[in-house]
Amino acid sequence: MSKLLQSTPRADGFHMPAEWLTHQQTWMVWPERCDNWRLGAKPAQQAFVDVARAIARFEPVTVGVSAAQYEHAATRLAQSRDDSKSHDIRVIELSSNDAWMRDTGPTFVINDLGEVRGIDWMFNAWGGLNGGLYFPWDQDDLVARKVLQIERKARYRADFILEGGAIHVDGEGTLLTTEACLLNPNRNPHLSRQEIEAHLSDYLGIDKVLWLPRGIHEDETDEHIDNVACFIRPGEVLLAWTDDREDPQYGLSSAAFDYLSQQTDARGRPLTIHKLPLPAPMYITEEEADAVDPSEGAQPRLAGQRMAASYINFLICNGGIVMPAFDDPMDNVAAEMIASLMPEREVVQVPGREILLGGGNIHCITQQQPLSR
Amino acid sequence: MSKLLQSTPRADGFHMPAEWLTHQQTWMVWPERCDNWRLGAKPAQQAFVDVARAIARFEPVTVGVSAAQYEHAATRLAQSRDDSKSHDIRVIELSSNDAWMRDTGPTFVINDLGEVRGIDWMFNAWGGLNGGLYFPWDQDDLVARKVLQIERKARYRADFILEGGAIHVDGEGTLLTTEACLLNPNRNPHLSRQEIEAHLSDYLGIDKVLWLPRGIHEDETDEHIDNVACFIRPGEVLLAWTDDREDPQYGLSSAAFDYLSQQTDARGRPLTIHKLPLPAPMYITEEEADAVDPSEGAQPRLAGQRMAASYINFLICNGGIVMPAFDDPMDNVAAEMIASLMPEREVVQVPGREILLGGGNIHCITQQQPLSR
Repeated sequence: MSKLLQSTPRADGFHMPAEWLTHQQTWMVWPERCDNWRLGAKPAQQAFVDVARAIARFEPVTVGVSAAQYEHAATRLAQSRDDSKSHDIRVIELSSNDAWMRDTGPTFVINDLGEVRGIDWMFNAWGGLNGGLYFPWDQDDLVARKVLQIERKARYRADFILEGGAIHVDGEGTLLTTEACLLNPNRNPHLSRQEIEAHLSDYLGIDKVLWLPRGIHEDETDEHIDNVACFIRPGEVLLAWTDDREDPQYGLSSAAFDYLSQQTDARGRPLTIHKLPLPAPMYITEEEADAVDPSEGAQPRLAGQRMAASYINFLICNGGIVMPAFDDPMDNVAAEMIASLMPEREVVQVPGREILLGGGNIHCITQQQPLSR
Repeated sequence: MSKLLQSTPRADGFHMPAEWLTHQQTWMVWPERCDNWRLGAKPAQQAFVDVARAIARFEPVTVGVSAAQYEHAATRLAQSRDDSKSHDIRVIELSSNDAWMRDTGPTFVINDLGEVRGIDWMFNAWGGLNGGLYFPWDQDDLVARKVLQIERKARYRADFILEGGAIHVDGEGTLLTTEACLLNPNRNPHLSRQEIEAHLSDYLGIDKVLWLPRGIHEDETDEHIDNVACFIRPGEVLLAWTDDREDPQYGLSSAAFDYLSQQTDARGRPLTIHKLPLPAPMYITEEEADAVDPSEGAQPRLAGQRMAASYINFLICNGGIVMPAFDDPMDNVAAEMIASLMPEREVVQVPGREILLGGGNIHCITQQQPLSR
């Protein structure tokens, strides 16, 4: 059994690197649950295939899938002869309760020698029995452990509930999160803000936490940071933005802007804030809602519900950015802005509506593994 | 998806190396089915843990286990603090129908550059609906593919039914098998002996097949070679032997001895044959038979059945031999003989009765992966 460590990453000289540090690969999980994904999850599966192929333009991918769907997923993800320039997409058996590798996978940490280890956070499906999105979540909580076993990486099991989508780091000591999620009593109610900061410091090797009050309106993760803001390099933050003062998101984004404007990062730098436009509000259609199998164990998907669409929900990978498109006029604006802010990377857009219908987007369904040296 | 190759290993310059070539690791599968393993498979699981730990003295191990048993297997296989000199035992999720990695896992092949690929043979549970040992075998038939995906190794899917336990090679062009298994009409009835030899040549890169007529008496695999004879180096064969002329095994071993005495290997060398004593005949007890859950889908385990016990069923690993012990006076004789024949290796004995009760032994539950260069 690959080693279970009793210390913390910081004590051992490890920290969470920024997402732009070179990756060994990106991990995903195959979507299957018919009470979350419409039409037997088939449109979502195609969307995940598109995301995996887009990432494989830049780096290897591993997709975990249940035994029941193994052959199907492996066939769909098999590379065609045209893909000879693509990196490998590996398909492995991996049980889960749903398909959000960002939140169930390990958070990888690295030390100065380039050794990589993983943090296996406790997971309670975004709130457990108090606002969580489904029950049970037992297989999800084993995902990080299984990933680390496959990679033969040492594992820290944190006595702390956290999803990977609730944090972003600059790799130089600063962590970005939201109060709406991390201070929510359905996560770690026994811990104060200071105690939470201490845990983040111990596990991620960070020195300063920046707390946005809120995230994206109607974001069912309790407003994860990875849907509203991220670092694009140390000292520079991209923030989801709308100029529509009638939109409930306006107040949320404004408050985040005001907060960030007054902060410095762990190294004392003031922050440059780039406003990334949001797409126009998006709603679940009647046809879409009707194609989800009803189930008491899962979040209802109702016609007319507003979805938490945001271009921020992209993955930085080796030389590339894989970001969602929503068939919205802002698609090009957002892509061009990201391309101009990170000119060293190629921006690839993948249709994101099917992923959004399940409650997240490209960053939520991926987890990068930094390259070991 | 790691590459599916349309050619054959031989055409691509690959061959199956001898078991003594340095391994990257050894693969196993966790025993679970209660209609084959007594007492809910718990004694067998302990025996498999003992085997995994013995192998880990010499090289890394990977154990595949169902989602249902994952936590249990991972806990049982976790290394204690005393094992600091042990290699890693990795536990991965892997569905199967039973626990015979030798027969369901890939046969690895290597080329002159040290690149390693795998052959994914067709598998029909040792005879399909015509004498096979259980139904269904769908998950077993996916094991090799999943192993190769995890290792990101290119895969040959052979249109040929073969179990890894049905073959042994010297790495220099010679293959050892039994007519009882490979010519059995429940394997590849549409192929002649010559066509079977051609398949073995194409996939394993061998030039000569040595056909023992039979294997071990009452061996339910249709008398696999890996329970009756193996190479210990090119030109030298170890053969399971009894001097008891009343034992049905006497005729089988004698015929094998006579056959091998008249053969040369692929390089024209005559063979040195070492007779390895068998333990005294072993039978399933009433208590053991009664503790197996009855099931129509599986081989019956009846009190008084003779078991196919043999010391030949050992694994050669990096610097070691892991072999079964049967609480028999011959245990020491066999171990000392093997140690004297392979003095460069350390011999470790592990109790083998619980594995034998399920129908095989240490070689049957393991599959070595040669080290890539």
